[in-house]
Amino acid sequence: MVNKKRVIQFKTPVYVEERGTAVGPKEGSGPLGHGFDYVFPSLLCGEKDWQTAEKKMTEKAITYCLHKQRLKDNHLDLFIAGDLTNQSTVSSQIARNLHVPFIGSYSACATAIENCIVAGMWINGGGARHVLCASSSHIGGCEKQFRFPIEFAQQKPDTAQTTVTGAGAIILGRHQSMIQMTEGLLGKVIDLGINNPYELGAAMAPAAADTLLTYLQETEQKPSDFDLILTGDLARSGSEIFKKLLREHGVIVSENYDDCGVMMYGTNQQVLAGGSGAGCCATVVFGHIFNEMLANRLKRVLIIATGALHSANTVQQHKTIPCIAHAVVFERRGN
Amino acid sequence: MVNKKRVIQFKTPVYVEERGTAVGPKEGSGPLGHGFDYVFPSLLCGEKDWQTAEKKMTEKAITYCLHKQRLKDNHLDLFIAGDLTNQSTVSSQIARNLHVPFIGSYSACATAIENCIVAGMWINGGGARHVLCASSSHIGGCEKQFRFPIEFAQQKPDTAQTTVTGAGAIILGRHQSMIQMTEGLLGKVIDLGINNPYELGAAMAPAAADTLLTYLQETEQKPSDFDLILTGDLARSGSEIFKKLLREHGVIVSENYDDCGVMMYGTNQQVLAGGSGAGCCATVVFGHIFNEMLANRLKRVLIIATGALHSANTVQQHKTIPCIAHAVVFERRGN
Repeated sequence: MVNKKRVIQFKTPVYVEERGTAVGPKEGSGPLGHGFDYVFPSLLCGEKDWQTAEKKMTEKAITYCLHKQRLKDNHLDLFIAGDLTNQSTVSSQIARNLHVPFIGSYSACATAIENCIVAGMWINGGGARHVLCASSSHIGGCEKQFRFPIEFAQQKPDTAQTTVTGAGAIILGRHQSMIQMTEGLLGKVIDLGINNPYELGAAMAPAAADTLLTYLQETEQKPSDFDLILTGDLARSGSEIFKKLLREHGVIVSENYDDCGVMMYGTNQQVLAGGSGAGCCATVVFGHIFNEMLANRLKRVLIIATGALHSANTVQQHKTIPCIAHAVVFERRGN
Repeated sequence: MVNKKRVIQFKTPVYVEERGTAVGPKEGSGPLGHGFDYVFPSLLCGEKDWQTAEKKMTEKAITYCLHKQRLKDNHLDLFIAGDLTNQSTVSSQIARNLHVPFIGSYSACATAIENCIVAGMWINGGGARHVLCASSSHIGGCEKQFRFPIEFAQQKPDTAQTTVTGAGAIILGRHQSMIQMTEGLLGKVIDLGINNPYELGAAMAPAAADTLLTYLQETEQKPSDFDLILTGDLARSGSEIFKKLLREHGVIVSENYDDCGVMMYGTNQQVLAGGSGAGCCATVVFGHIFNEMLANRLKRVLIIATGALHSANTVQQHKTIPCIAHAVVFERRGN
């Protein structure tokens, strides 16, 4: 019997060559607002529909990514992207303008990190030197598609989350930089029977716990080996369940644990349990967290991106919600 | 300036360890029907809704894949899957029962081949030894979601295609077998301005031509170097446009060219221009084509899977349809 390890150690070093973020007005006025590259003053971003607004936002994030390093898209070997719109059309429409070989991905709100892991493996396998990844979400598009149009002003329970309007782009590659992606772990799909789309934190927490426990066990590390362990979008209620599940396995995470969906908004912002969406983890990590790493306030960070793999259709069919959590480790190089 | 080659040569050999296919009644009674592992006698596959029927069909294909080799799912290192349902929920619900690390993919009808290329890179990069890939489509689910429920009996033009009800699964890995995946080429997204979802063959043909021309140019090969060049689902109208586009570049494909969407159905079956859908290329290649290769009637086959990256929403917005085509080469080993 072969001892199968799930943690991937990137043998060819994979660096964060560049990153770009663009968000909506609510995210821009939150506590992390100053850390994003661009804040759109309106949800429509000057467009006529939510999907085109989301596309514009992602293109803005990609433009920052490319222009900071004066790169052109012919520098890139591969584009990996996914989003929450049906058939991931925002990403496909962006790919149309990039003229770069394209992999479409879907891992719900964990898409940003699925993309990073696939990019890392591509770089390791010799198939690419520079890979652009993008993911996004938009509250207008998501509410309309998964629930009701926002104009309907639907009332929701406290455990419901607010979709982050934001897009994150990253270029991973072989050019040395200050931040390195050293390890990755693809999650298994876990479904403990929750079928309420207003309880996504509770639905996703077991997947996040499974991924963290697998990671710690395989690498023989403890939570204190990281400056920060960060879940993607469990929000307040889901984070508590995540910590409780870990305690049941004798693992305590507290001071060095946070959640992107909790960090994104201030306590004065009406966001129910906190943020969610494929843009949540992407903007918080590629924006705020990388800023903190560059400023040497964080050196080693474990990201556990969480995704709920449901649709409006499966909710109407009362199907339970399969969830996933993918993990990567980012490390600051040097002092 | 570095000469960037897009064709990926898999340095670590990647073999087709096993494959499984399951289709609906119309596909089963077509000219390739005898080559599929399982034919469901009804479109609902004994279930109550189209999505659950599609899930059952894909699980059947996976079961054949695993049982032919007496494999268990703990043999697998990775599961890669995608389908046409919103948020790819059929694939996610299957992943829930597999307990294998999961990558969600989306490349519309080209998903089967996107999966193969990602799996190949994963095996090359040392991240996995055995990768299960699956993709599927179902006419009931697709018509309801992209157009109108089939009960509505919508009239369509001759260029419209019939969604294949079928699922294909494949295990790619390091165990030597008769069929090897030797090369891959990820497509760029191309959109020449067609916004009519009943003209998908015409929309996708330029992407297929771009991928084939890039492949031939980079590898300095000619169409006659293959026993068969096979597009995924251009169907009759799209195939003619594909051949015309190639002729404009001085490339002639004729005797050794075919299209999965054309091959799937007999001329007596009412399917308009032919088959389409993520299950089309997957079942024809993993079923019929691999059978022909094992029987030594085909030795070297170039598959160009085609995908139209639109949604019901983008169609209603009159947006043009971005299209993609991914290519792989399968070769029979030995005599």
